[in-house]
Amino acid sequence: MVSVPINKMFYLGIDGGGSKCRASVADAEGNIIGTGVAGPANPLHGVEQTLESIGDAAKSALSEAGLPDSTLSTLVAGVGLAGVNLPSLYDVVNRWQHPFAAMHLTTDLHIACLGAHNWDDGAVIITGTGSCGYASVGGKGHVLGGYGFPYGDQASGAWMGLEAIKAVLLAFDDLGPQTQLSDAIADQLQARGVMIVERMAKATSRDFARLAPLVLAAAESGDAVARRIVEEGAAYVSALGRKLLALGPPRLSMLGGLADRLRPWLDAEVAQQVSPPLGPPEAGAIYYARQQHQLAQPA
Amino acid sequence: MVSVPINKMFYLGIDGGGSKCRASVADAEGNIIGTGVAGPANPLHGVEQTLESIGDAAKSALSEAGLPDSTLSTLVAGVGLAGVNLPSLYDVVNRWQHPFAAMHLTTDLHIACLGAHNWDDGAVIITGTGSCGYASVGGKGHVLGGYGFPYGDQASGAWMGLEAIKAVLLAFDDLGPQTQLSDAIADQLQARGVMIVERMAKATSRDFARLAPLVLAAAESGDAVARRIVEEGAAYVSALGRKLLALGPPRLSMLGGLADRLRPWLDAEVAQQVSPPLGPPEAGAIYYARQQHQLAQPA
Repeated sequence: MVSVPINKMFYLGIDGGGSKCRASVADAEGNIIGTGVAGPANPLHGVEQTLESIGDAAKSALSEAGLPDSTLSTLVAGVGLAGVNLPSLYDVVNRWQHPFAAMHLTTDLHIACLGAHNWDDGAVIITGTGSCGYASVGGKGHVLGGYGFPYGDQASGAWMGLEAIKAVLLAFDDLGPQTQLSDAIADQLQARGVMIVERMAKATSRDFARLAPLVLAAAESGDAVARRIVEEGAAYVSALGRKLLALGPPRLSMLGGLADRLRPWLDAEVAQQVSPPLGPPEAGAIYYARQQHQLAQPA
Repeated sequence: MVSVPINKMFYLGIDGGGSKCRASVADAEGNIIGTGVAGPANPLHGVEQTLESIGDAAKSALSEAGLPDSTLSTLVAGVGLAGVNLPSLYDVVNRWQHPFAAMHLTTDLHIACLGAHNWDDGAVIITGTGSCGYASVGGKGHVLGGYGFPYGDQASGAWMGLEAIKAVLLAFDDLGPQTQLSDAIADQLQARGVMIVERMAKATSRDFARLAPLVLAAAESGDAVARRIVEEGAAYVSALGRKLLALGPPRLSMLGGLADRLRPWLDAEVAQQVSPPLGPPEAGAIYYARQQHQLAQPA
């Protein structure tokens, strides 16, 4: 580890998920001086790509801060990643010969929760490409869901896309109701019936998640099939919310690309307890980096 | 094409699916003189593997018939494969520089239907690793379902395995009922919660289908979660059956590894119209080879 006086230290916060990787660089006091974005960083979908995205996002944030790439080796990084709730993926990423002075690895959930509640106790429900619930109560983390696509991640974009395709294929066989959702999916994919399967061959969770805005729009305009999908997803999020609130967190926030559009579908008792996040996950990652670094200093 | 008098011709029938490839060799009169089995042959999961399995199964059938490998080049092959209902996969397999005198390619559904009804009109519902319905009425084929995992294939082994894992993970989070199915899956996979996701990383439809017998056994012994899964699958098969029967086929058969265990769960009106298949898919493939070959002869 390069020895740098703690008051000259720069911190790197990484928030890596299935769609993109966000990086922030902060000075010794935690003021963010540069940000960057790069490609996907969920090691479940590719460890090489994840490490590359982390490096690219970090360099881009350094560049915005007016710092050279060589600064990488002096950064103390707090890295929150999707997928590292799986022990084997945590180990793989943690063994990385990273270019930083130090790396402190945790889940994307943990840094999102730290950011959303200003490093205080609280709970978050994340619904983006994937979905997950997390609460920090008395400093102890609790994870619910987040098992990934297609086993879990109910209410996520990928789940919505898959459920929509299942429903549209049933409708194509006249084994389920044919609604405007069938046309919306056909327009987007330029395919119907078995040709949809051709289009989605080797599709990733991101590809499925690209269909979620269509499903939400159809549900919002009253489409019966889309409503059933969104209601089923919202019921899962409401159940997740009740379970997290039962742990007694002072606050609950919803994060991720689908959060705002899902909230109106939630049970009122849960929806009314949702507060806006106080800060972004990257701020949580910076905080995590500083906290872990200070813990690592000799007293 | 090697010129062989038609009365000296041998025929090859291939039935290729997601789990294995079965081959039969028949003499000029259609009497089966050797059979063989090889690995998976669903081009959706790998074209190379499919072509290799076809070749291996064919050689193994020739060997049982006491014929040398060099006989391959004189065989007229009828090849029924899963996956080739997708036009792109049909084209890829059909462009194969195959080792036979001639190859006539069609779907596994088509040959299964020919075999089940002694080359007559009829309908079949196949529930194995995947699921599909097919009817031949007035010589015209109609396909229902068969879109593959995870978009379609309701009631298939892969679908049952995935639904079981979804239910068991919900139960692990106390967001769904915990029943003996959770223990049965935990015993089989030697994993619970997020470790199940580790076990199923990169799992294929065959891996999911391996869990289906557990789900059926649990349902048969009254497990509420397993019953819900099997009942949902059976409702799909009943709907498929009604739709196929509406086309007016003289007979309806159920085929595939799960057929016998699913039949008791079907709606009585459908179940009572199911007749046993008269012959196996390989017999349908041999018939298809002979029929296509005779069509190809100068009058």
